[in-house]
Amino acid sequence: MNYSDFFTGELDRLRDDGNYRVFADLQRKRGSFPQALNRDGDNKRDVTIWCSNDYLGMGQHEDVLGAMHDAIDTVGAGAGGTRNISGTTHQHVVLEQELADLHGKEAALLFTSGYVSNWAALGTLAARIPNCLVLSDALNHASMIEGIRHSRAECQRFRHNDVEHLEELLKAQPLDRPKLIAFESVYSMDGDIGPIEEICDLADKYNAMTYLDEVHAVGLYGPRGGGIAEERGLMDRLTVIEGTLGKAFGVMGGYIAASTALCDFIRSFASGFIFTTALPPAIAAGAAASVRHLKNSSFERAQQKQRVAQVRARLDAVGIPHTDNESHIIPVMVGDPVKCKYLSDILLKDHGIYIQPINYPTVPKGTERLRITPSPVHSQADIDNLVGALELLWSQCELARIPMAAQ
Amino acid sequence: MNYSDFFTGELDRLRDDGNYRVFADLQRKRGSFPQALNRDGDNKRDVTIWCSNDYLGMGQHEDVLGAMHDAIDTVGAGAGGTRNISGTTHQHVVLEQELADLHGKEAALLFTSGYVSNWAALGTLAARIPNCLVLSDALNHASMIEGIRHSRAECQRFRHNDVEHLEELLKAQPLDRPKLIAFESVYSMDGDIGPIEEICDLADKYNAMTYLDEVHAVGLYGPRGGGIAEERGLMDRLTVIEGTLGKAFGVMGGYIAASTALCDFIRSFASGFIFTTALPPAIAAGAAASVRHLKNSSFERAQQKQRVAQVRARLDAVGIPHTDNESHIIPVMVGDPVKCKYLSDILLKDHGIYIQPINYPTVPKGTERLRITPSPVHSQADIDNLVGALELLWSQCELARIPMAAQ
Ligand SMILES: Cc1ncc(COP(=O)(O)O)c(C=O)c1O
Ligand SMILES: Cc1ncc(COP(=O)(O)O)c(C=O)c1O
Repeated sequence: MNYSDFFTGELDRLRDDGNYRVFADLQRKRGSFPQALNRDGDNKRDVTIWCSNDYLGMGQHEDVLGAMHDAIDTVGAGAGGTRNISGTTHQHVVLEQELADLHGKEAALLFTSGYVSNWAALGTLAARIPNCLVLSDALNHASMIEGIRHSRAECQRFRHNDVEHLEELLKAQPLDRPKLIAFESVYSMDGDIGPIEEICDLADKYNAMTYLDEVHAVGLYGPRGGGIAEERGLMDRLTVIEGTLGKAFGVMGGYIAASTALCDFIRSFASGFIFTTALPPAIAAGAAASVRHLKNSSFERAQQKQRVAQVRARLDAVGIPHTDNESHIIPVMVGDPVKCKYLSDILLKDHGIYIQPINYPTVPKGTERLRITPSPVHSQADIDNLVGALELLWSQCELARIPMAAQ
Repeated sequence: MNYSDFFTGELDRLRDDGNYRVFADLQRKRGSFPQALNRDGDNKRDVTIWCSNDYLGMGQHEDVLGAMHDAIDTVGAGAGGTRNISGTTHQHVVLEQELADLHGKEAALLFTSGYVSNWAALGTLAARIPNCLVLSDALNHASMIEGIRHSRAECQRFRHNDVEHLEELLKAQPLDRPKLIAFESVYSMDGDIGPIEEICDLADKYNAMTYLDEVHAVGLYGPRGGGIAEERGLMDRLTVIEGTLGKAFGVMGGYIAASTALCDFIRSFASGFIFTTALPPAIAAGAAASVRHLKNSSFERAQQKQRVAQVRARLDAVGIPHTDNESHIIPVMVGDPVKCKYLSDILLKDHGIYIQPINYPTVPKGTERLRITPSPVHSQADIDNLVGALELLWSQCELARIPMAAQ
């Protein structure tokens, strides 16, 4: 066994398939995000970021930055321990209260990331509840899949957003068998939204728990930024709502909101919660400021909706095909990893537009895409540049357009 | 199935066993760490923290705080994306170079925590290398165990630090079967140190990879803070060195340092690396400043060693039993969860000394302990208070003392 040859061989295979990833080295310019400096070897160029998950620009918000500065000045850098061993700071306690309130739940529990929250919470519930059956949407995020896999509980996948299929599976089980339905609100790569109400109805009927990942919705939907479940008046019907502090809230971290007993159970038994250093107090403070701001301000949400509508209309006007959906995510399908990366490279090099190509394993092979995320901080000029560049590229590359008549 | 009753029942069991955890709500006072404010309901009290893993007080260091402030001012709060999709900032790139250099390796790869680095790196190596056998020290940390478990590769545990047992297991395998030996340098709860050189010798002899967790050693040992492997001149013999940025470096995050091909392999295939928002640039910048400082300054390490020796000598002088070891960790064994929590409560309430009781699952049942971590920022008065309080408690509670003559 030659380990080094093995690694190199696997990487060569990725390269041959067009799936080898090159990370863009970016330096944001505070105050003028989405503008950033992109370094490529010795080259530096100014770019506009069009694929960030800092959906509302909260990572640049004065309240958030101010809270982070304050926390650093008053308490320092890291938490210095796990939550149990000296790492619970007052900032964590306050943020957990803020999040419980956001979702109208008794309690909330923080994790170091949304990934860890899904992995640890689903992994612990499914492993510890005796004979638990997990029913998992076919397009669930990797972090949920890994958590379920880790639990070694039985898992049945239901076809994406297909409540009839879900009911078939539920119906086949004894009513008193513990069941956990895991799904998302906004699916991040297609931008479509799960049938939350119908799934809650089924959960009630078949005595199942519900676990909803609102990672791409918290901060963005609902009158206080509680997500799609808030917008649809369904928060109290869900057993667990999971979210991130690293996307619309602009900082980092993940959480679940649920009953006191459930949160305490995860707190007490989840390895991924127990055995790791807590978030730095400054991160918790920044996130709390962001959550608080977006509870009280709908300005950013309204602005974003308007920008998203505008980009969609402008793409339609020039015949650039994009998948329609109810959310803020605009997927422009390319369907080939090499072409997708090529388009992304030209956008970066010739137009100063940064949109990372989305390829396998983030999306299934053959569905490679450019994923555009307009935000309140994109200007009219940014939108003009984006649409102009895509139009030019689509002509140059003879990519499929929607016939003008069909619009 | 009544889910809520199930959770409550499991929590009651924990309480009955004395293993229910109560987190102390702490607010550090910057500039005067290890002093902090402890909130308990409406009560507030001043306490001295004696169980932090901010081992050198770097979480309060001006360079670290300055770098965090600067990064917030220049680039904002969060990274806004996964490393692949807009989340690689210049701060990440610089920190990875700093860490590769620290360990004398070609490359380094950042994760959101030390937990995730172990889980993702071990999980990916063991799952993806065909027919890989993992040889795992019996006292490895939960994050390593979970990563290995997740991989579903075959795992054989060798008795803690027992190289003869390890050799027996290695010898029984075909030479060309891929093998990965996973172990730690400083074991965090007992403070003993792994036989790194002997394990590397065996790895060479039996064609195995080595994976060393230096989480409780980086920053603390070696002329530049590279850990025990640096101190012993063994860094180049290890395949992977794993570390955290959340303990001696005082911030948050985890990493591996290894060959370019190995890091690129993990970067390309590890779910826990790919599918999660990158660390905030301010965290990366603070960590880089900390690593840089501890490469050039041995002052903090020397001070810590001196404080540790002093606390040990003072405990010996009053006959408080503590486990001897070569590291900076002083475990005072209690051996009962209820007694351990009781001692910790009295220390907090009557003496303003915060030492979290360490109980199951962090240590095996029956080995409950107080784990004391002296740091350069503990003063002579702090030490006097600690030893005085322990002496009083040991008398009051009639706990076993070392007979004075036996010292
Ligand atoms: C649906 C979904 N859940 C969870 C996560 C993980 O959240 P975080 O980035 O905070 O780890 C992501 C993306 O990263 C996601 O897309
Ligand atoms: C040996 C060991 N490895 C890894 C970790 C995890 O590191 P982090 O706290 O950065 O997640 C810890 C403690 O938390 C540990 O004790």
